[in-house]
Amino acid sequence: MPATLKEFETVFPKLVEDLKEHCEQYKLPQQALKWFENSLNHNTVGGKCNRGLSVIDTAQTILGRKLTDDEFFRTASLGWFIELLQAFFLVSDDIMDSSKTRRGSPCWYLMPNVGMIAINDAFMLESSIYVLLKKYFRQEKYYIDIVELFHEVSFQTELGQTCDLLTAPEDHVDLDNFSLEKYTFIVIYKTAYYSFYLPVVLALYFTGHATPKNLKAAEDILIPMGEYFQVQDDYLDNFADPSVLGKIGTDIQDNKCSWLVNQALKICTPEQRKVLETNYGRKDKACEAKVKTLFDELNLKEKYEQYEEARVTEIKQKIAELDESEGLKKEVFEEFLRKIYKRSK
Amino acid sequence: MPATLKEFETVFPKLVEDLKEHCEQYKLPQQALKWFENSLNHNTVGGKCNRGLSVIDTAQTILGRKLTDDEFFRTASLGWFIELLQAFFLVSDDIMDSSKTRRGSPCWYLMPNVGMIAINDAFMLESSIYVLLKKYFRQEKYYIDIVELFHEVSFQTELGQTCDLLTAPEDHVDLDNFSLEKYTFIVIYKTAYYSFYLPVVLALYFTGHATPKNLKAAEDILIPMGEYFQVQDDYLDNFADPSVLGKIGTDIQDNKCSWLVNQALKICTPEQRKVLETNYGRKDKACEAKVKTLFDELNLKEKYEQYEEARVTEIKQKIAELDESEGLKKEVFEEFLRKIYKRSK
Repeated sequence: MPATLKEFETVFPKLVEDLKEHCEQYKLPQQALKWFENSLNHNTVGGKCNRGLSVIDTAQTILGRKLTDDEFFRTASLGWFIELLQAFFLVSDDIMDSSKTRRGSPCWYLMPNVGMIAINDAFMLESSIYVLLKKYFRQEKYYIDIVELFHEVSFQTELGQTCDLLTAPEDHVDLDNFSLEKYTFIVIYKTAYYSFYLPVVLALYFTGHATPKNLKAAEDILIPMGEYFQVQDDYLDNFADPSVLGKIGTDIQDNKCSWLVNQALKICTPEQRKVLETNYGRKDKACEAKVKTLFDELNLKEKYEQYEEARVTEIKQKIAELDESEGLKKEVFEEFLRKIYKRSK
Repeated sequence: MPATLKEFETVFPKLVEDLKEHCEQYKLPQQALKWFENSLNHNTVGGKCNRGLSVIDTAQTILGRKLTDDEFFRTASLGWFIELLQAFFLVSDDIMDSSKTRRGSPCWYLMPNVGMIAINDAFMLESSIYVLLKKYFRQEKYYIDIVELFHEVSFQTELGQTCDLLTAPEDHVDLDNFSLEKYTFIVIYKTAYYSFYLPVVLALYFTGHATPKNLKAAEDILIPMGEYFQVQDDYLDNFADPSVLGKIGTDIQDNKCSWLVNQALKICTPEQRKVLETNYGRKDKACEAKVKTLFDELNLKEKYEQYEEARVTEIKQKIAELDESEGLKKEVFEEFLRKIYKRSK
């Protein structure tokens, strides 16, 4: 039985208490302590927590049994460290992208009296990971490995973000700057490593199965899966029913270097390219509508469906070929794929 | 012979090359690679590098001999990691404080085409520390100790920054919010740990002398020294000759929770407090002048000189009592104190 979001959320208050205790040892003034606590709760809790939950589920699948209470707490903590890492990125991404809302609330930097203090709050969310890792995992032989893993995945995500910000600046449209090569780099580094690779590798370390062979197999399957997930995200942003998706896509108006615009650029006529040049990345409903019409004319929905089938076949093939002799199981990846294949939100 | 800034600076290009190689392994697109390189050079090089240099000097003093070329490179690298940590903080502090210039150039976020991308650039400066620590120190038995040291000092600095931002927001003057207790917390956590404690402790690990006794002794001397250094900084901001200091102080106009305003609040009459209430933290030359006059009336120059003498006597006493039996030397601290005592810039 997979862990529920509710069960997962029961663990977070204990981690907040741990962090508060750590600060109290330094005699942090009350006002600042309260501020930190608010930031932790506002920015880390309230999402779907798929990344965090998948640490628990993966560990359970690998061990082939229900986790003990202690194992649940520890894998949930590892899951929360991913959620803290994501909170660190989202708080700062929202400033960099001038976003307005996040999970249905105003972005943290737009909350009363926050503003640019949010940058330092983002740093503290990141630092919290290492305070807690030390508290709970210091005695494990794999402690330094997971510390390094968080460092490396953070760096990879930041590289992806650098490339994304340079390729698709909010205020300057230059379609010559887009390319499928850059798109692939951005997607793999900005999303796939921390969202797909990181949870499974944490579970591999936790269960004692982080052999070089298993780490390599996890990467070979999860990075293409993460890539597929983001392409799907880009597809849904334009083609999904907003009432099902739960939000209205803004990639076209936001000048995003998305899978759709890259496909369009690859196959469009010079006239169609002019339509894109004139209308992509403008904060204007009519411009957006013209791009949407062009995406339909170019049959991007069908292109996506072909991509999806090809990619999923390829991933299934890799899963089928997985060597389970060192304790990693096909079921781990089948479960991930089941959750995202043909999703509508 | 202490290391020169010039010698220290010869090491940085090698570290930049290492980071570029690390990125190339990920096939980071050229545009992003170039961007990262520019950020590293613009934000890390060009300061006085006192923190970085003192790792080398401290190691040399402890070993009691000239360093080999390899030892020089490795202690200089540790020094550059502090400079990278500081660059991470300064790039983001400048955004949070709406600063205009840094080391005589525009702040990074104000450079052409940078803007809020600077936030992600700050993250990459921080991540660079751990990429390089892993490359050069992974094989050392103290590797995890210095990784944890950087984590903890980062967290401490962020806590200090949180407290500073909440106590003295740029746009909202509330002198009731100031106190000497908060002032002391801010100074110790935001400055003393990373500027004074960190370089010496890195040198202790490097030379194999990081015993619990030496770590404790270093903290007991360096934290009061860092506190004294910042009080002095606040004093100079108002009382130093700008042509000697190399900049014009702005603490009064910037509503800083400085040592001077806290002293003033402690001893002022109700009438004098009104002068502060009306004039402190206003972006106005005439208001600033009234505060400066009040600081003179309250004899804060003399108060500072008394503070300095008392504090330095106390620090000298602690140095005199230092037990050198585990390899730490009084000379390390005497050198630090010599550099800052009665400095004029």
